[in-house]
Amino acid sequence: MTDGIVNATAAPARHHVVVVGGGFGGIEAVKRLARAPVDVTLVDRRNFHLFQPLTYQVATGALSQGEVAFSLRALFHRAKNVRVMLAEVTGFDLDAREVRLDSVTGGHTPDTLGYDSLIVAGGSTYSYFGHDDWSGIAPEVKSLESALETRSRLLNAFERAELEPDPEARAAQLTFVVVGAGPTGVEMAGQIGEMARDTLRHDFRAIDPRQARIVLVEAGERVLSTFPPSLSAKAKRALAQLGVTTMLSTAVVGIDPDGVTLQRDDNSEYLPARTVIWAAGVRASALAGELASAAGAEQDPVGRVTVESDLTLPGHPEVIALGDMVRVRDGDGEAQQLPGVAPAAIQQGRYAGRLIANRVRGRKTSPFHYRDKGNLATIGRARAVADLHVVRVNGPIAWLLWLGVHIFYLIGFQNRLLVLLRWGFSFVTRGRGAQLITGAEAHRR
Amino acid sequence: MTDGIVNATAAPARHHVVVVGGGFGGIEAVKRLARAPVDVTLVDRRNFHLFQPLTYQVATGALSQGEVAFSLRALFHRAKNVRVMLAEVTGFDLDAREVRLDSVTGGHTPDTLGYDSLIVAGGSTYSYFGHDDWSGIAPEVKSLESALETRSRLLNAFERAELEPDPEARAAQLTFVVVGAGPTGVEMAGQIGEMARDTLRHDFRAIDPRQARIVLVEAGERVLSTFPPSLSAKAKRALAQLGVTTMLSTAVVGIDPDGVTLQRDDNSEYLPARTVIWAAGVRASALAGELASAAGAEQDPVGRVTVESDLTLPGHPEVIALGDMVRVRDGDGEAQQLPGVAPAAIQQGRYAGRLIANRVRGRKTSPFHYRDKGNLATIGRARAVADLHVVRVNGPIAWLLWLGVHIFYLIGFQNRLLVLLRWGFSFVTRGRGAQLITGAEAHRR
Repeated sequence: MTDGIVNATAAPARHHVVVVGGGFGGIEAVKRLARAPVDVTLVDRRNFHLFQPLTYQVATGALSQGEVAFSLRALFHRAKNVRVMLAEVTGFDLDAREVRLDSVTGGHTPDTLGYDSLIVAGGSTYSYFGHDDWSGIAPEVKSLESALETRSRLLNAFERAELEPDPEARAAQLTFVVVGAGPTGVEMAGQIGEMARDTLRHDFRAIDPRQARIVLVEAGERVLSTFPPSLSAKAKRALAQLGVTTMLSTAVVGIDPDGVTLQRDDNSEYLPARTVIWAAGVRASALAGELASAAGAEQDPVGRVTVESDLTLPGHPEVIALGDMVRVRDGDGEAQQLPGVAPAAIQQGRYAGRLIANRVRGRKTSPFHYRDKGNLATIGRARAVADLHVVRVNGPIAWLLWLGVHIFYLIGFQNRLLVLLRWGFSFVTRGRGAQLITGAEAHRR
Repeated sequence: MTDGIVNATAAPARHHVVVVGGGFGGIEAVKRLARAPVDVTLVDRRNFHLFQPLTYQVATGALSQGEVAFSLRALFHRAKNVRVMLAEVTGFDLDAREVRLDSVTGGHTPDTLGYDSLIVAGGSTYSYFGHDDWSGIAPEVKSLESALETRSRLLNAFERAELEPDPEARAAQLTFVVVGAGPTGVEMAGQIGEMARDTLRHDFRAIDPRQARIVLVEAGERVLSTFPPSLSAKAKRALAQLGVTTMLSTAVVGIDPDGVTLQRDDNSEYLPARTVIWAAGVRASALAGELASAAGAEQDPVGRVTVESDLTLPGHPEVIALGDMVRVRDGDGEAQQLPGVAPAAIQQGRYAGRLIANRVRGRKTSPFHYRDKGNLATIGRARAVADLHVVRVNGPIAWLLWLGVHIFYLIGFQNRLLVLLRWGFSFVTRGRGAQLITGAEAHRR
């Protein structure tokens, strides 16, 4: 243990596991290791676990930020062998078995942190396909801050429309473009549809929020491309009922503050729209690249590093990488991409914890095997699609399933109850509890 | 009606009341006017009503922002004669009967808004006694953004202490100074005490959060100076039980990023402290000054404008100002300062609405009379003081009273239930649901 923080009176050094990232994969690994004879340091640049599958609901004011985020320290405060460290991991020295750190607190932070075993679960970020200048115009809804920013922008667009005398400018204010028709894009477009049709319906005097035009743009041939085509078609119909126009086989080739440039086949079209939300391509965390170059491992075009069938880095059995920043080799040595969803990360995190616990105890562990339990996406109130492989459902039953699964996986009884209550209220009143314009967007002059 | 927004098909012009400010006074006035034969425009630069008496609980992670803020549009969406306008009021032209506006949405906003009657309820802001440079170092907890900023700073201080090897620097990280021992300062200091002793107790490995030093600095001779001395003494004892050191008759004469300079009699002392929270003097909204200079009315040293006994501006019976931006003339013509608390604003708002409703119907209204129902302050879990004039209580009974009153006045059944649940959880688990470091403070490098 090369770590200078643990005080001098600590017990003789035990096997020290450093876990990087407090997302679904990271915290599952730590939970498993909390019961093993090891010391664990969980390093994250944020002090909370974010329930990403519901972050988009913060962006539409359905949930408040405290309901989808949970303090990492509170999560592990009873696990005496687990320490949480707030720091940014900038790289790895695999030979010295050290993680390089940078401060996020503004105070003292050690430059390096030594490990015996390392688990890297850095996740992914949205990618603007090389157009980083789009990020300021079209926020994504993956982080808590960007979700709040999106919430303020959505609401502010209706406010601007209410005060806008020019019909053309008003139409642009009331045009909302969501880029990317994966689960997040579909859920986001559906929620904006509900906001306009139900939540805000009686809130304005000069405009009718139902005039809002919500456009979901997808470069592929159908929405929810990871679902069976029949469910994609049902999702598209459900979106249409919420007033969402879906434009398939259409690429976004330009975004500026006044609108988006769309291209379909050889035709390009400029769509005036003052609010654009990005839910398209993802890119693996930069930590995947750090690991790949340190170990000479492969990376795919979106930056995922290839790991062995036991999730370890090639040539470095003491280093595990997991989640949506990796591809995993199957029995034939082929690199497979697992779905970038919470259940996949959870299974990998649990496996990583077990692998290290087994090793410390001198036991073997069979290769990681992903159990695909199905795919869920919600479109709006009582509307969802579910692909459980053996059966495909849509409508209220799929929606109840979606509800149950998300409540079940939320961390903390308190959050579960609060979210359930918020949803209950929303369902009955069609309102949203957190329609607040905050932050920089609140004073735009 | 000189307003260009209402569409051309509107009913013949009715008496138009502009209400500036969606705080306690403003919304009570609008609620009353929603039932009167008038048209109402509520102008605020924020799109929500903030329940200020609980904002400090957002600052300590006990509540989430969506639980203490309520959309103004949602509040009045059923009142068809009420329109909400998101804009900043920058001044008044009393002769032309116009309010001057500036945009906060970044879109089109009319320059002026005409009125037949005007109610100005601009509230107050914290005053740094001419030391505006202190505001960046010592945030207040009156606005939602500054409460979130304070929350991040408080939690970040513990994080920095956890990683700080130097004992002296660590002590400075764990020293929290609250300036001003009015209700907000007392409640804030008590909550930090509870955070350190209960909420965070098991969360760290290198530090014991109970080592935190919480210093409440007050220039006056006792805490809660608006309460009877016996309750001040009880509050001070309750604070001591939570580990709060109260320094009375002590002035803050300097604040820098490393600490505060305190002065008592002729002795000055430098207290190293990395977190300072400002809960001292308030200053009336700048709108009070605009009204005073437009009408030639008096202003007191903290900027409050003096209004007549019916809350109208001298010489301008069509203009009402209320809340903690005014002093009210009593029967003898003496300007009286009412307590800057929600019940006083609520009573004045209700009166203002009634006054205008009566006038429109040709009825008289007797002068405003403030009914002081008492004073409440909470110090921590099951600790509070209450001065109900006929009886003074402290301890659990006062705390239950405090709880009941605050739940009762919270807007919306949903918020009431959620806040009650949060408090229930906190009471049982001694945890806090929203221990999140967000915003700029999350990446301080």
